[in-house]
Amino acid sequence: MSASKPTHPNADVRMKGFAQRTTVDAALAWLDSVLPPLTNLPTEELGLYEIAGRVLARDLTSQVNVPGFARSMMDGFALQGEATYGATSYNPLPLQIIGTCLPGTPFPRQVLRGEAVRIMTGAPLPAGTDAVLPVEMSDLDGETLRVLEPVSSGKHVGQIGEDIRSGDVVQPAGRVLRPQDIGVLSSIGIGRVEVVRRPRVRVLITGNELLAAGTLPAGYQIADANGPMLAALVARDGGQPILSDIVRDDPAAIGDALYADADVVLVSGGSSVGQEDHVPRLLAAEGELAIHGVAMRPSSPAGMGRLENRLVFLLPGNPVSCLCAYDFFAGRAIRALGGRSSDWPYRRVRVRLSRKLVSTVGRVDYARVIVRGDEAEPLAVSGASVLSSTTRADGFIIVPADSEGQPPGAEVEVFLYQ
Amino acid sequence: MSASKPTHPNADVRMKGFAQRTTVDAALAWLDSVLPPLTNLPTEELGLYEIAGRVLARDLTSQVNVPGFARSMMDGFALQGEATYGATSYNPLPLQIIGTCLPGTPFPRQVLRGEAVRIMTGAPLPAGTDAVLPVEMSDLDGETLRVLEPVSSGKHVGQIGEDIRSGDVVQPAGRVLRPQDIGVLSSIGIGRVEVVRRPRVRVLITGNELLAAGTLPAGYQIADANGPMLAALVARDGGQPILSDIVRDDPAAIGDALYADADVVLVSGGSSVGQEDHVPRLLAAEGELAIHGVAMRPSSPAGMGRLENRLVFLLPGNPVSCLCAYDFFAGRAIRALGGRSSDWPYRRVRVRLSRKLVSTVGRVDYARVIVRGDEAEPLAVSGASVLSSTTRADGFIIVPADSEGQPPGAEVEVFLYQ
Repeated sequence: MSASKPTHPNADVRMKGFAQRTTVDAALAWLDSVLPPLTNLPTEELGLYEIAGRVLARDLTSQVNVPGFARSMMDGFALQGEATYGATSYNPLPLQIIGTCLPGTPFPRQVLRGEAVRIMTGAPLPAGTDAVLPVEMSDLDGETLRVLEPVSSGKHVGQIGEDIRSGDVVQPAGRVLRPQDIGVLSSIGIGRVEVVRRPRVRVLITGNELLAAGTLPAGYQIADANGPMLAALVARDGGQPILSDIVRDDPAAIGDALYADADVVLVSGGSSVGQEDHVPRLLAAEGELAIHGVAMRPSSPAGMGRLENRLVFLLPGNPVSCLCAYDFFAGRAIRALGGRSSDWPYRRVRVRLSRKLVSTVGRVDYARVIVRGDEAEPLAVSGASVLSSTTRADGFIIVPADSEGQPPGAEVEVFLYQ
Repeated sequence: MSASKPTHPNADVRMKGFAQRTTVDAALAWLDSVLPPLTNLPTEELGLYEIAGRVLARDLTSQVNVPGFARSMMDGFALQGEATYGATSYNPLPLQIIGTCLPGTPFPRQVLRGEAVRIMTGAPLPAGTDAVLPVEMSDLDGETLRVLEPVSSGKHVGQIGEDIRSGDVVQPAGRVLRPQDIGVLSSIGIGRVEVVRRPRVRVLITGNELLAAGTLPAGYQIADANGPMLAALVARDGGQPILSDIVRDDPAAIGDALYADADVVLVSGGSSVGQEDHVPRLLAAEGELAIHGVAMRPSSPAGMGRLENRLVFLLPGNPVSCLCAYDFFAGRAIRALGGRSSDWPYRRVRVRLSRKLVSTVGRVDYARVIVRGDEAEPLAVSGASVLSSTTRADGFIIVPADSEGQPPGAEVEVFLYQ
């Protein structure tokens, strides 16, 4: 599959840059073949306040019933339901109020048939009672309760194990924990949870022409755009970005950086086949350069491979190409290595094209669009380097390799940024 | 509007719990009337690696052109476009290669008409050239370049200011910063950015019956579910949760906690009209209890008001009611105080009901549903306290106050959890 050594019989001799570009589908197939399943991912144990949005590593089972005791579901009066039969507002049933039952504390004695107990939501039902009369169904006359409507036994009472039974799997492995899921774990006494460890993603920015991110450009030097962008993308996809200074276009410096500890290495820049593109050669020599050159636009110089236990992604230095290659390949891997769905993280909408969208057969296009109402307008951009096109855009369309594009009015699927 | 002092002429004398419940619409109208606009929100200045997902406080203007110099958009050969007119593969045009142009470094001399310079993507165009010939449109014969197709002037060249012009507003105030937006800011030398400060949200959990979150329930004590759930909800909505130990049902302790420093206070528990419900009385006495009791289910005992410069939300202790009241009111306020859209943070889908959905006229219902394909199945739950219903559910339907519910097959809008 390696495109760095031209072996394909149909290789176009005029494509000097890359002897042969791999299809996007073949590149994804290689990537998916090397991603481990959820059960093989490293895990860590965290407290309840640290797990929002994290991925559960193991099925979680309740050791308790919820509720653990019969409890009132509303503010009212605990009593025997059977004793209220026949009560109406014309013929109220009088009961003696003998006390109050608060949450957390048991009532001190058995309640008899002619008696009732004030009870608050969540309080345990006193012995001898089996129903709660809502305040609205009663009148008070001193300490005498006048029941205006009957309530049946069990009414407004939360029964033992009604919500969760001891032994139930309350959350399955692989679940991305939502706020209410954490509430449930808390309520059944699970204070620490085993979640999938975030993949550690080293962001290596290479290029002699680069100034540090956020530096005012001067002369022929430009400020790095990819470092902070990639860090934000990695965090979005559940990875832990590891940052370092910009690496010069020097094989020794890049080689050292590639071996630093990480689960995934993103190399921005130096990914193509030019004389300063050291990374593909280094990866091929010291590890595996599985894919180099992909039939897509932008980011055709993208590549990927492995070095010892790291996945390495070669991302073009060009910011739009970098974003595109990240999103097609690296983001997918980072999500999967964190136990998440490898699918695109973008919401999709179906809209119509307001203008023609041109594409070239033989490559996948990543076309930025502005969405207005139910129409998508392709952004006319002269080149891949126009990063501002991705900030003006609301999303993108993926045009398949076998398409020449689409006419105005065609229905298309737009992936919405964020 | 205060429901704590029954003044409404139509107040139903049999509703002892709350004299009169405010409508959801009226509660939202009060809330929106006290939320400040973006321009009045407190801000902070952060570095590029800290601003993903944060909200820009001010319009950001570029001080530079991007590109700052004419640069090559691909690997190829810099030359005079005009000199290539008429070149074909049958009649190649020979040019002398006089050197290589790398990114970040200017070429040392003027390029003449019969000459070309190897150039890499991003490198500045040498003086005397105005186009880049792609590698694929050429052959090499030693240091002689054979041009096989003409390129027009300007082709494959990024022009000064083509992407961003000095003086352009590159990002408007209020924008939630995406990864690529941060890349753009970095590339124009903006290293620190003024963003809206996260609202500081104090989470006060009250209740004598409560054990700390994640503690195994024992006897009639139950473990707090709301603290970790609310912390996760606040973080999701862009707030900064501030946590403290569980507060006893004691007016002095609750009063102290209400006055602690915060922009928003979420009080879980003690929100109703029972004898242990101290919070509404405290808020009415020391601040403003604007809304107390809302015509909705669950979470009818919800309330809200102000204490000095804090917004205070009274959330029922019942976990599902707590989630519902948070989502309807508190989350909306936290998002707005962080400069975000106050709209629901959930994705919406239109599906059909698989079963009848019953509701009561006069109150808004928050009905949890399971979504299977294009059908929504209402979850049959006996009470609001069943938090596991919100973890089994895929989302919820909001049934308006004037609806008696919907028959099977009716089209409904489902808000999908996360």
